[in-house]
Amino acid sequence: MTDVNGLTIGILGGTGDQGKGLARRFAVAGHPVLIGSRNAQRAQEAADSIGSGARGAENAVVAAEADIVIVAVPYEGHKALLESVRAELAGKIVVDCVNPLGFDKQGAYALPVEEGSAAQQAAAVLPDSRVVAAFHHVSAVVLMDPSVDKVDLDVLVLGDDREATDLVQALASVIPGVRGVYGGRLRNAFQVEALTANIISVNRRYKAHAGIRVTDI
Amino acid sequence: MTDVNGLTIGILGGTGDQGKGLARRFAVAGHPVLIGSRNAQRAQEAADSIGSGARGAENAVVAAEADIVIVAVPYEGHKALLESVRAELAGKIVVDCVNPLGFDKQGAYALPVEEGSAAQQAAAVLPDSRVVAAFHHVSAVVLMDPSVDKVDLDVLVLGDDREATDLVQALASVIPGVRGVYGGRLRNAFQVEALTANIISVNRRYKAHAGIRVTDI
Repeated sequence: MTDVNGLTIGILGGTGDQGKGLARRFAVAGHPVLIGSRNAQRAQEAADSIGSGARGAENAVVAAEADIVIVAVPYEGHKALLESVRAELAGKIVVDCVNPLGFDKQGAYALPVEEGSAAQQAAAVLPDSRVVAAFHHVSAVVLMDPSVDKVDLDVLVLGDDREATDLVQALASVIPGVRGVYGGRLRNAFQVEALTANIISVNRRYKAHAGIRVTDI
Repeated sequence: MTDVNGLTIGILGGTGDQGKGLARRFAVAGHPVLIGSRNAQRAQEAADSIGSGARGAENAVVAAEADIVIVAVPYEGHKALLESVRAELAGKIVVDCVNPLGFDKQGAYALPVEEGSAAQQAAAVLPDSRVVAAFHHVSAVVLMDPSVDKVDLDVLVLGDDREATDLVQALASVIPGVRGVYGGRLRNAFQVEALTANIISVNRRYKAHAGIRVTDI
C-alpha cells in the first residue's frame, strides 16, 4: 500500500462537522493537519478543539501548504471556493468529499450537478490538480466520538489517476477500522455522493450512524 | 418481520442472469416461482434448469398469476414490458431491480432516466401497483452458484409504501445470508441503481463478486 506517512493533510471547510471529524482522525493518527476556513480565527478554534497538533488558517493558506487537500465545504460554496484556490491546488491531489443534497420534510435527496457530480465539478474547476472523490459516507458524529475506537465502514475512493486513488485509499486506511476501497472512475461519482441521502434515510429508520462495507474483497 | 411464507413469486425477464439467479434462490427457499419471458418455451427451459418446482410462462401470465412480481428485464425493454402488463400488475407489489447502465471500454456507467430512475419509471407506468426498488446489487454468478450457501450482502429496499417495503425486506431475507434493509424513498432510487456501475468497477479491480453491507444497523 502507498506510504502516506508524514503527509500534511489540509482540510478546506475544516470547521464543518465532516471536515472537523476527518481532521481529528488524521491528527490522532499522527498526521500534521491544517484546518482551513474563510476565517482564520474560526479555523484556529476548530484546530484547538481537536488538539493533536492541528493548526488552523485561511483556506488559501491551507491549500498552499498542505501536501494533500480534502474539500469538505458545503455544496453551495463548493465551486466558488475551488475557483478561489485554483493556483494553490495546482499539482496536488485534491480529495472531494462533498455531497450535493437537498432536504425537505421527506428527508434528503440528491441535487443535480451540471458537471455530473461535485467531484467532476472539482475536476472541471481544477484542471491542474488530481481530483479524487472519497469520504462521502463517513458519519461526522462517529468521527468525533472519542469512544469509537474503530470506524466500521469502507471509504469508496473514485478517480481516474491510479497513483492518486491508491494514495487516498491508503490515507483512508489510517483511520482505525476503515478500508479505502477503489470505487470506480470520477464519472461514477454522482451516485456515491447521492447515496448519502439513502444513508440518511437508513439512519432515520434504524436510529443509527450507518456506513457501507463492500463484501467479497 | 412480515410473513412472506407461501407467496408465489413471479419474475418478469426471468430468463436473464439476474432474474434466473433470484428465481433459483426463492425456489430453493420453498416459494412457488413463476419465470416469465416473452417466449413461454424459453421460460419453461429456464424453470426446468432451476428445478425446485419453478414453472415458466409468458410474462403476462406470470404477471397475472404471481402474488408479487419482480421485474428483471434489460433496461432497454423495461418501459414497454411494463406498459404491456399494466392491467395484470394492478394492485400488486412490483419489485423493480433494473439497473439502467451503459458500457464502454472504461467499464459501466449510469444512464440518465427521464423519470429519475428505472423504479420511478415503473411507478409512472404502473399507477395502480405498489412499486418497490430492490435487488440491484446481487451478483447473478453468486446467486446461481450452488456452492455459495450464504450470500454476503444486504439488499437495499426502497419505496414509498411502508407495508410494501416491509414485505420486500422480508422477501430478501429468505435468501440465506441476505438482509433486506430499508434504503429510502423511490425518489432516491437512481443512485442505488447507478451504484451497480461502481460495484462492477470494484469487481474488475479486485476480481470479486462484490456486494454492499450496511453497518451499525
